[in-house]
Amino acid sequence: MSTQGEKNLVEGNKEYAARFTQGGLALPPAQKYAVLTCMDARIDPAAAFSIPLGAAHVIRNAGASAKDAFRSLVISQQLLGTTEVLVVKHTGCGMLTFQNEDAKGIVAKNKGSEAANEVADLDFLPFADLEQAVKEDIEWLESKAVEKEIGFTGWIYEVETGKARRVV
Amino acid sequence: MSTQGEKNLVEGNKEYAARFTQGGLALPPAQKYAVLTCMDARIDPAAAFSIPLGAAHVIRNAGASAKDAFRSLVISQQLLGTTEVLVVKHTGCGMLTFQNEDAKGIVAKNKGSEAANEVADLDFLPFADLEQAVKEDIEWLESKAVEKEIGFTGWIYEVETGKARRVV
Repeated sequence: MSTQGEKNLVEGNKEYAARFTQGGLALPPAQKYAVLTCMDARIDPAAAFSIPLGAAHVIRNAGASAKDAFRSLVISQQLLGTTEVLVVKHTGCGMLTFQNEDAKGIVAKNKGSEAANEVADLDFLPFADLEQAVKEDIEWLESKAVEKEIGFTGWIYEVETGKARRVV
Repeated sequence: MSTQGEKNLVEGNKEYAARFTQGGLALPPAQKYAVLTCMDARIDPAAAFSIPLGAAHVIRNAGASAKDAFRSLVISQQLLGTTEVLVVKHTGCGMLTFQNEDAKGIVAKNKGSEAANEVADLDFLPFADLEQAVKEDIEWLESKAVEKEIGFTGWIYEVETGKARRVV
């Protein structure tokens, strides 16, 4: 039995592949930049941020966390030549709604002690202030020697309006 | 002076926001699934995997690494109710082309010893065999108590053809 996600992929990919014409794109991003944004279901980066296929790396995690994306950013820059990062967090982010202890409590309650142990040392990287979180992530990246000569900008995307605005 | 990534975002987002009609979507993914795929510039998950806006979390990192996505997956499942994960790696992945020592050597050569120190303990999580890497990631996830009752499938997307096929 296929689940909804599998159905979407199998059926939708047939149509996508049938009209696909961009099989010759190069591995390194053609426009030499990366976008770091949230995994939130309400964000479609290619459409909302107008990223042509093949142009940019798109890194997504819970909260668009720079610390969590560090490995990917270093690979993007040092091995694949990107020189610019747009950090895009968004209104209504789930990361504004809980703290580490809440998440760990939920895991322990719903999944038991073995699961609780697996996340005991995990920092879920929640944040209390959206604009401040963008600023702090960019400050953290700019403090790294490996990130020297990389250009950073910080943005907030509004899931209510579809608008993005620059904050750093 | 705006860079190319900023120009894309600022100009493209004006048009996107002008025709945006989906401001009322809920925070939890409506179709209760997550897609984990690579940051590769040649992948447009919403289009290629047919993900409706608001339906699914999309997590992206270098190589579609499950270990690197663990924090995001736990948040997606335990706090936001997703129950299914599609792991989608792809042909021509950069992670097939280097090993940890190569990446660390490039950082040291290009950015100096302070930068080299910053990545000294970092596992870049490269892999040598694409299909095997999908299988190992799913086995790793299935070994976790916190991932019990979550459904996993593994896929390979072909950047040359636009086709996705299931491997696990």
